[in-house]
Amino acid sequence: MSQLNQQQCQACHANAPQIEQSELAELIKLIPDWSSVVRDGVMQLEREFKFTNFKKALAFTNKVGEMAEQQGHHPALLTEWGKVTVTWWSHSIKGLHQNDFICAAKTDQLDD
Amino acid sequence: MSQLNQQQCQACHANAPQIEQSELAELIKLIPDWSSVVRDGVMQLEREFKFTNFKKALAFTNKVGEMAEQQGHHPALLTEWGKVTVTWWSHSIKGLHQNDFICAAKTDQLDD
Repeated sequence: MSQLNQQQCQACHANAPQIEQSELAELIKLIPDWSSVVRDGVMQLEREFKFTNFKKALAFTNKVGEMAEQQGHHPALLTEWGKVTVTWWSHSIKGLHQNDFICAAKTDQLDD
Repeated sequence: MSQLNQQQCQACHANAPQIEQSELAELIKLIPDWSSVVRDGVMQLEREFKFTNFKKALAFTNKVGEMAEQQGHHPALLTEWGKVTVTWWSHSIKGLHQNDFICAAKTDQLDD
């Protein structure tokens, strides 16, 4: 569990269980730069990444997009001048799955 | 004015005038697929573009990003699976400038 970024996303179906609150608290510790937010009743993981211009922000969006395609799991990527806000959640279960924590950890690795 | 998409953005400074309401109504008619929204007290232009997957959505984000770099004016681009929400406004005047209408019209041209 400590090597979240080395794990791969698993297929997630509508009847997959959401993460229990106790497990959530443990997983959140592993990605300390992320916040858990609730939007439209859905728990999500969110982090803002800062850059010095628009071009660098868009390049990061593309790196996260490429990883998302590889994992078959897709975030919301808000690209603006100097920043990208990345939000992960699992649409099919309307909440957080371990996949989201894996992808959050993988996103951290792309920020250099 | 009818060929908005042929115009180029002009440098916009903090003391540039915001568009008057009567002019706003005329300009909005020229980009009928866009909505004007008010967020945190700032008027913005917004349109959602639909796609059949994440990859095509991200490709559109890149096309809009390239145009934005050319114009020296940058939107917020929310990329998700199957859609991109594009939002234009002028940070320096905390509202809408003619540049935003020009860029909205140019964005429409990139959707094919």
